[in-house]
Amino acid sequence: MRLIAIGDSIVAGAGDPGHLGWVGRVLAGRRGVTLYNLGVRRETSADIAARWEAEVRPRMVDHEPMRIVLSFGLNDCNLADDGGPGLRVPTAESLKNAQAILTGAARLAPVLLVGPTPTAEPGVTVRAEALNDHLQALAGRLQVPFIDVFRPLAAGGLWQAEAAAWDGAHPGAAGYQQMAELIGAHPAWRAFAQAQEA
Amino acid sequence: MRLIAIGDSIVAGAGDPGHLGWVGRVLAGRRGVTLYNLGVRRETSADIAARWEAEVRPRMVDHEPMRIVLSFGLNDCNLADDGGPGLRVPTAESLKNAQAILTGAARLAPVLLVGPTPTAEPGVTVRAEALNDHLQALAGRLQVPFIDVFRPLAAGGLWQAEAAAWDGAHPGAAGYQQMAELIGAHPAWRAFAQAQEA
Repeated sequence: MRLIAIGDSIVAGAGDPGHLGWVGRVLAGRRGVTLYNLGVRRETSADIAARWEAEVRPRMVDHEPMRIVLSFGLNDCNLADDGGPGLRVPTAESLKNAQAILTGAARLAPVLLVGPTPTAEPGVTVRAEALNDHLQALAGRLQVPFIDVFRPLAAGGLWQAEAAAWDGAHPGAAGYQQMAELIGAHPAWRAFAQAQEA
Repeated sequence: MRLIAIGDSIVAGAGDPGHLGWVGRVLAGRRGVTLYNLGVRRETSADIAARWEAEVRPRMVDHEPMRIVLSFGLNDCNLADDGGPGLRVPTAESLKNAQAILTGAARLAPVLLVGPTPTAEPGVTVRAEALNDHLQALAGRLQVPFIDVFRPLAAGGLWQAEAAAWDGAHPGAAGYQQMAELIGAHPAWRAFAQAQEA
């Protein structure tokens, strides 16, 4: 199986001293899975909508099962760089971008959407929780499997404590490991990632 | 620091049950390094010449030191799919592609070239050794630092033994770890990768 992971810095695993992130950690021991991690720091849903297809296409093959896992939205929830009260991407735009990405990617391979994470910054986190709910509803309408990591990570406290101790947004090894375990145990992941391995 | 690694399946770490490959392993513990791994299986120097810039540009930032490590050529040394005696990419073409990639990438950030690896297939391995020497000479002319992994990996035997036990080309965790240690201890890597961390 080949797994393409596309999204933001949480997909990239920024801040993980083990350089695995949750994506590498959830695949631990699965030698037959080729991972292509296309997470990019600071990217919003608009950036990913513009980039995903050009990067996914060269990685698609016919001779092995392909899967595409997506996760984005947290950067949309930051305030815009102009210093005003607006977001980097307003919620209506985030949802339009998400719909375009999910419907496009689902034409190429089975897709799974992982929602945004909490952070150590209360304002961003409140908006991420709201966007998480919107994305979950959208995924439901599109019949795309969705994993809500926001609530279990926020409830646990470890994620936000590690983020607060570093840059406010990214945890360390333990946080990424916790996220990997949440996802790995989720029925949606199990159904998505249980393709036969080469 | 942000490190972009671009190349073939050896860069991607195919076959590593730990999903790190040599790139993830050589960065172990360096939390301040963001890794973007753009290795793609089966790609030749021609494929990478066509793709590298479109994928590197969105990952470049001004506010942190950037580094670009490249490794390719082994797939060039395979026989062409037409069943004839020709290579997927003839050596003269491989070197033209390599020159174009290295000169282009060096305009964006400091670059380092890692040569091809041995495999469990003797014909491919003989050609990879010859290409390794050509790439080393080219890198010297271009004043691009180069790391020869071919000879130490071939001499050790572990790499090829692990590859033979799997798919002929890719080792397991121990082979990738050995490659990471060779590279991490090399003066060219130390000079290349010793940027300040954010």
